[in-house]
Amino acid sequence: MTITGKILIDGEWVEGQSGTYQAVNPATGEKLEPALSKASSDQVKEAVAAAEASASKFRRSSLSQRANFLRSCADEIMALGDTLVQRAMVETGLPQARIEGERARTCGQLNLFAETVLAGDFLDVRIDTALPDRQPLPRLDLRYLNQAIGPVVVFGASNFPLAFSVAGGDTASAFAAGCPVLVKGHSSHPGTSELVAQAIAQAVKKTGMPAGTFSLLMGSGREVGAALVTAPEVKAVGFTGSFAGGMALIKLANERPEPIPVFTEMGSLNPVVLLPKSLEDNAEQIAEAFVGSLNLGVGQFCTNPGLVLGIESPALDQFIEATAAFLVSQSAGVMLNEGIQQAYNEGVATISSQPGVAKRAVGESQENKPGFCCQPTLMTVSASAFIANPLLTEEMFGPAALLVTCKNLAELLTAVKSLRGQLTGTIHTAVGEMVDYDELIDALSQRVGRLLVNGFPTGVEVCHAMVHGGPFPASSDPRFTSVGTAAVYRFLRPICYQNYPKELFPEPLQDSNPLGIWRLINGERTTTAV
Amino acid sequence: MTITGKILIDGEWVEGQSGTYQAVNPATGEKLEPALSKASSDQVKEAVAAAEASASKFRRSSLSQRANFLRSCADEIMALGDTLVQRAMVETGLPQARIEGERARTCGQLNLFAETVLAGDFLDVRIDTALPDRQPLPRLDLRYLNQAIGPVVVFGASNFPLAFSVAGGDTASAFAAGCPVLVKGHSSHPGTSELVAQAIAQAVKKTGMPAGTFSLLMGSGREVGAALVTAPEVKAVGFTGSFAGGMALIKLANERPEPIPVFTEMGSLNPVVLLPKSLEDNAEQIAEAFVGSLNLGVGQFCTNPGLVLGIESPALDQFIEATAAFLVSQSAGVMLNEGIQQAYNEGVATISSQPGVAKRAVGESQENKPGFCCQPTLMTVSASAFIANPLLTEEMFGPAALLVTCKNLAELLTAVKSLRGQLTGTIHTAVGEMVDYDELIDALSQRVGRLLVNGFPTGVEVCHAMVHGGPFPASSDPRFTSVGTAAVYRFLRPICYQNYPKELFPEPLQDSNPLGIWRLINGERTTTAV
Repeated sequence: MTITGKILIDGEWVEGQSGTYQAVNPATGEKLEPALSKASSDQVKEAVAAAEASASKFRRSSLSQRANFLRSCADEIMALGDTLVQRAMVETGLPQARIEGERARTCGQLNLFAETVLAGDFLDVRIDTALPDRQPLPRLDLRYLNQAIGPVVVFGASNFPLAFSVAGGDTASAFAAGCPVLVKGHSSHPGTSELVAQAIAQAVKKTGMPAGTFSLLMGSGREVGAALVTAPEVKAVGFTGSFAGGMALIKLANERPEPIPVFTEMGSLNPVVLLPKSLEDNAEQIAEAFVGSLNLGVGQFCTNPGLVLGIESPALDQFIEATAAFLVSQSAGVMLNEGIQQAYNEGVATISSQPGVAKRAVGESQENKPGFCCQPTLMTVSASAFIANPLLTEEMFGPAALLVTCKNLAELLTAVKSLRGQLTGTIHTAVGEMVDYDELIDALSQRVGRLLVNGFPTGVEVCHAMVHGGPFPASSDPRFTSVGTAAVYRFLRPICYQNYPKELFPEPLQDSNPLGIWRLINGERTTTAV
Repeated sequence: MTITGKILIDGEWVEGQSGTYQAVNPATGEKLEPALSKASSDQVKEAVAAAEASASKFRRSSLSQRANFLRSCADEIMALGDTLVQRAMVETGLPQARIEGERARTCGQLNLFAETVLAGDFLDVRIDTALPDRQPLPRLDLRYLNQAIGPVVVFGASNFPLAFSVAGGDTASAFAAGCPVLVKGHSSHPGTSELVAQAIAQAVKKTGMPAGTFSLLMGSGREVGAALVTAPEVKAVGFTGSFAGGMALIKLANERPEPIPVFTEMGSLNPVVLLPKSLEDNAEQIAEAFVGSLNLGVGQFCTNPGLVLGIESPALDQFIEATAAFLVSQSAGVMLNEGIQQAYNEGVATISSQPGVAKRAVGESQENKPGFCCQPTLMTVSASAFIANPLLTEEMFGPAALLVTCKNLAELLTAVKSLRGQLTGTIHTAVGEMVDYDELIDALSQRVGRLLVNGFPTGVEVCHAMVHGGPFPASSDPRFTSVGTAAVYRFLRPICYQNYPKELFPEPLQDSNPLGIWRLINGERTTTAV
């Protein structure tokens, strides 16, 4: 496979009609070949029309057809081989092991959604059988199942060029639901995006899915992104990125004649609470693991631990010292692109100049390094200054953290209660310690999607039990996760069939339960026939 | 129990501080005693603070405690006896049988949610156990469950003074989820609202729920309603009513610093499609049943069939004749209040004056009848005129219908595709006929929450398989129903516990599965222990 610079509309690779651009190697600042073309808003309309024209057939594909398609996507991505890995590395500055790991995760995710589709639980089938003799009124036969909501727009994220991009979790879960997908690829890794789109296009053909099941549109967020979100046929949007970017899409979606949901995952501070005994026992080890998590992937994770809270004590001082000592030896890594580098530097400068904030330690300087590098940074602030200044809860995307020192438990509780919604919250606790902090833990749990103990939030397992989401502004809708199999719920809506001819039911609703799926029949969970 | 005119805040009945008003008997236009007090915005703040203060305890109540509370609500409503029935009748103009039936439905609904709570399926528990030896990285123990989203505001609807009001489906499902509820009672049946609130307040006390679990606030939508929706502690809103009212709440909720979901059910045309053979066989019977459904409850149902579509034929003419004949004998019933009567009259006047629309038949005139009565009305229009005029898809809330005559199947298909989202869609079909109309049925199914065959949409079963919702503007979010046990999903959000101390898990997540609920353990649906 080679990169052509074309975009994919209705199964055809065509030149985008809004000019060209080139990707940039963030490790060197050099432009990469070939030139890539950008979609026009007319081309967006074509792609959306193709998605709509394919929606009914794809929605009504059998569970096994859809599972085959998902698996085929994974196979075709692996078949891209080293071409994909090399291009992703050069476009993102991420090392080979990380890209290969992310590819494994991406394909594993597609295969897990294939299993999820076959299991059929996501359909939430409910059957209430007719009660013709019920008094005062008979009950008619009623059958409920979740079905695809319609065409979905996915915005690729910069920080996961595979797992949160063209064939990432949003795309995989929308396909699992039976929704055609229109991807607005991220300009930070356009060649990678095209290669993955080639793989999906192959899978569409090989498994006989309609051509409009998948399109790739490269171009500007303002032109292509806005045209996609405002297209009447589009029924939902998935987005991982900045707060400003997410809110702009939500605004567009809310102003449509038919408003649609935009599932944004907009980052987070991911607070880490250090309980006193835990620090007394393990300050050094926690500090080492913390710095590892903070600097992993050059800090470019949505779950990067950017905020630490502890109660003043010699052990907390020891933790700060140890963290500082580990941090100074960290090198200045290459960020994903120039814009992210610039935002990081500005963010650190802003936070560190706030009243009461002290820069406590920095790693290697990015000055005199080629490309878009950044300096790991630890800052400290008192809880009173933190609570008084909402600006200190702004995310710095990259390897920077703010440590909040609290005078006592009451101040720690107030600081936690001052937080807005977060993707994750972490507690470090000695054995048996947590039970004495019920109000604190409860307050933290109400502000997060994932609550974790004695670990760090980076590393988001793709499984059934994952929640990657959380109260606003971590995500736009805390009722849904964007990672894990429950992510499919975002793209489904229930429909109820009343007194419907039995011979016309889709398989999941048929009396005999030919798929052998779990169903709720008259309130009982069962795999038996009606 | 007597009506005091007070409002309920944090378990205390107090005088509202924004003046008083009186309910009106719509059958006579007379004001009803006693005077009732309206909440001030400060009182709203008190009630919201009480809900927030109760949220943690109520959220963490055990499933059996919560089920007991729901059942107790039902028992206490029944214990109000004839006082409730008589007051509801005089405030709404609805007959005794209807009010008693609605009371049975309301209490049955509370009891069904109690069963749903005990079954525990709504928690969607997912457990992925630790894989310490997995390569390249171990997996940590991950456990997922749905939990209450926080305080919920419910707006009582005018047309169901019990089943969609103070203790209606929104309240019952929010309680089932573990969310405190703040009800803004409807001014059309304030005495009824207070009586039901007295019952819930009793249930709160008897079952030991925290006092802020439930509050009743009467007053204006603009003052009390807006103060509730914009209160920062409130996390979701349930509303059944007009499009304008629903959209105003959505706008308020979207403009909050933390936007929240507003689940609005904003009515619908509920299109009925008459397939040709069905009409040939049964024009007369269908017409009779149609008029019965259209005029049921004086047409004041969200699922009232206000739009009928058929292909021109002698059988369709026969259907129109028969419908007209049945309609003229229908009496002018009492509407719920003066505003609804006025809106109905204006709606019928507007629609009937559109190009191509003909008034085909009317029932008894409301002129010279006491109170707020209305005249049943049938209008006809050609499909071409219908498709060309979006105004003809406006709902007329009351016993009025528009019948669209289509030249052929293609025109019928175009007319169906021109429809916006609907709560229901109905098909009348002869045996085996539907299979030849796949594209039409599929197009209709994509525009509705409930698709029903050979019946009429009025009469919404409260059960597991019901969907009362649908694509916008029938509801604000087609992914959720407001009737049936799946309504609980609106008020839940998932949380994931990672590597959490086993002794601190809530019951549904404990290894031994003490509640015996269905869980997904490593991808397998089971009730066994971990």
